[in-house]
Amino acid sequence: MRSDRFGDRLARAVAGRESQLVLGLDPDPVRLWPAAVADPGNGSVAERAGEAVAAHCRLVLAATAEHCVGVKLQVACFERLGAPGWTALAGVIAEAQGLGLLVICDGKRGDIDVSARAYAQAYFGSTPTPFGPVPGLGADALTVNPLLGLDSLAPLAEIGRAAGSGLFVLVRTSNPGAGDIQDLVLSAGQTVSDRLAGLVRTLGGEPGGSGLSDIGAVTGATAPQHLERLREAMPTSPFLLPGVGAQGGRVQDLAAAFAPGPGGGLVSSSRGIVFASETAGGEPARAAAGEAARLRELAWQVSH
Amino acid sequence: MRSDRFGDRLARAVAGRESQLVLGLDPDPVRLWPAAVADPGNGSVAERAGEAVAAHCRLVLAATAEHCVGVKLQVACFERLGAPGWTALAGVIAEAQGLGLLVICDGKRGDIDVSARAYAQAYFGSTPTPFGPVPGLGADALTVNPLLGLDSLAPLAEIGRAAGSGLFVLVRTSNPGAGDIQDLVLSAGQTVSDRLAGLVRTLGGEPGGSGLSDIGAVTGATAPQHLERLREAMPTSPFLLPGVGAQGGRVQDLAAAFAPGPGGGLVSSSRGIVFASETAGGEPARAAAGEAARLRELAWQVSH
Repeated sequence: MRSDRFGDRLARAVAGRESQLVLGLDPDPVRLWPAAVADPGNGSVAERAGEAVAAHCRLVLAATAEHCVGVKLQVACFERLGAPGWTALAGVIAEAQGLGLLVICDGKRGDIDVSARAYAQAYFGSTPTPFGPVPGLGADALTVNPLLGLDSLAPLAEIGRAAGSGLFVLVRTSNPGAGDIQDLVLSAGQTVSDRLAGLVRTLGGEPGGSGLSDIGAVTGATAPQHLERLREAMPTSPFLLPGVGAQGGRVQDLAAAFAPGPGGGLVSSSRGIVFASETAGGEPARAAAGEAARLRELAWQVSH
Repeated sequence: MRSDRFGDRLARAVAGRESQLVLGLDPDPVRLWPAAVADPGNGSVAERAGEAVAAHCRLVLAATAEHCVGVKLQVACFERLGAPGWTALAGVIAEAQGLGLLVICDGKRGDIDVSARAYAQAYFGSTPTPFGPVPGLGADALTVNPLLGLDSLAPLAEIGRAAGSGLFVLVRTSNPGAGDIQDLVLSAGQTVSDRLAGLVRTLGGEPGGSGLSDIGAVTGATAPQHLERLREAMPTSPFLLPGVGAQGGRVQDLAAAFAPGPGGGLVSSSRGIVFASETAGGEPARAAAGEAARLRELAWQVSH
C-alpha cells in the first residue's frame, strides 16, 4: 500500500524525472515493432497475440522510459485479446512500474455505485472471494467517465485514494465529436464540460502538501482554447492532455495547464512516439527515443 | 455471422419467448449461490474465483432462462478477476446463447474512434493479428457511454451491425446521481438526456422490418417520468430498463417503453431475481425462478 496521495506522488515524480511526458500505448497487433513478433511462442492465436503485444510494449518502454514520467495504457487494445490480453496488460503494468513510471489505465470506466466499486477493485484494490483476495491491477490512476454523476465516481475515488491512486475524469476530450455533448451550453450559461469540472473539484477536495489533487481531469490537447477556463474551474487538478501528435495537439499551446506547477499537466503522445520512425526514419527504438526526448524538453520549457 | 439486424432479432426473440425479461448477472464472489463454491478446483485464487463466478451464473441461468429473453452481464464483475474473469465471461456468454438468450454486455464503453473500434472488436468482431484473427466475445449487444459524441459511437454501431448486434446507449441511467449531468437543462430548453436521445436517433437510422432499431437506449426504470418524452424522441429504439427491484423501479410504470411493440422495452432485474430467496425464502433456484416468472408475466401484461 502506498503511503501518500496520488497528487503528491505525481508532483514528486515530475520533479524527480524532470518530465511531464506520458507515453501512450495503444498496441495494434498488426502494427507492432518487428522485433515484437519475432518469437511468438506456441500458444493459441490469442496467446501469441497477447505475448507479441506485451513484447512490443516492453520494447517501447525500454526505448523511451527515461524520458517519461508515466505511461497511459489504452485498455481496449488489451481487452480485445480476451484473457491473454488481460495477462499482457498486467505484465506491462508491472514492467512500467519497475521502470519507475506512473501507470494510467485509460479505461474510461463509469457505472452505478455497486459496479463502480467493482471497477475500483479491478484497477486499485482487490476483490474478496471465499478463496482469498484477488488483487487488482495496481494502477496508479484510471481515466473515468462522469456521465452517471458524482455517486458513480465516489467509490472509484475512495478506493483509489486508499491505494494512493488517482482518477482522471473526462472533462473535455480530444476527439472531433467531443463537442456534441461536452460543449453544449446550459441554461445557466456554463457548458457541460464546465459542470463536469465542477464535479472534479467537488470530488477532489483539499489537495495534499504538493498542492496537486488526486482527482485529475482529461482535457484534450486538441482544444487548448478551453484550458484557461478549465484551469480556473479546477485549480489543483492535474490535467491529462492527450492528443499531441497524430491527433494534432501542440505542446506549445498547453501552458495554462501548468499553472499549479510542473506537475499540473501531463502531455500524452501515443502514435507520435511509437511510430516516429515512419516520419523520422531509422530504427523504431531510436526514433521513438528521439521524439520522446523532444516532447519532454518542449513540455518542460512550456511549464517553466 | 448473423444474417439479420439486432432490432429484428430482438423483436422475434421477444415474440417467440413471450418475455421481455432480462436477467442481470453482476456476480459478487462472496455472495454466490452455495452450490457454486462447492467444487472450486485446484487453480490459483483468481482461477478458483473465476470458476465459482461462472458456476454461479450457470446455476442462475439454468433456474431462470425459460422466463427470460436475454441476460445482462455486468462486465466490471468479471473484469475485477483479471484473466480468469475474462475466461468466465466468455464461458457465461456461450452458456446463455446456448440457452437461446440474447446477451447484453453491460460494459458502458466509450472512447475516441480508434479505441472505440478496439472495443467493437472485443465485443462484436475480431482482431486481426499476424497469427490470425482473435475472435471477440460475440455479444448480441453492448451498453455504451455517449459522452464523447457521435464519432465515438459510430465504429461500435458499424462493427456491431456487421455482426447483427446492437448498442444500448446510456440516455437516462437508474442511479440517484444520474441527474447531476443527464438532467441538466440546456439553453435550447432540452436536457442533456434529450440531446443524447437525439444521438441515438441519428445513429439508429431506419429500422428493419420489425420496426425496431438496432440502436437502443438505457433508460432507467427508477425514473419513469422521463419515459414518455424519451419514447417520443426515440420512437423505434428498444429501451433497456434497469433498476427494477433492488434499485426501486416498478414494472407497472414502464408502459411508455412498449409503444413500438412488445420488443420496445427490456425489463432488467439483477439482485431482485438472484437473491429472491432472501425475501421469499426457500431454495435460491426455486425462488429466483418464481421471481423471474412473476416479472415476466408483469411486463407482458404491461406491454399488451
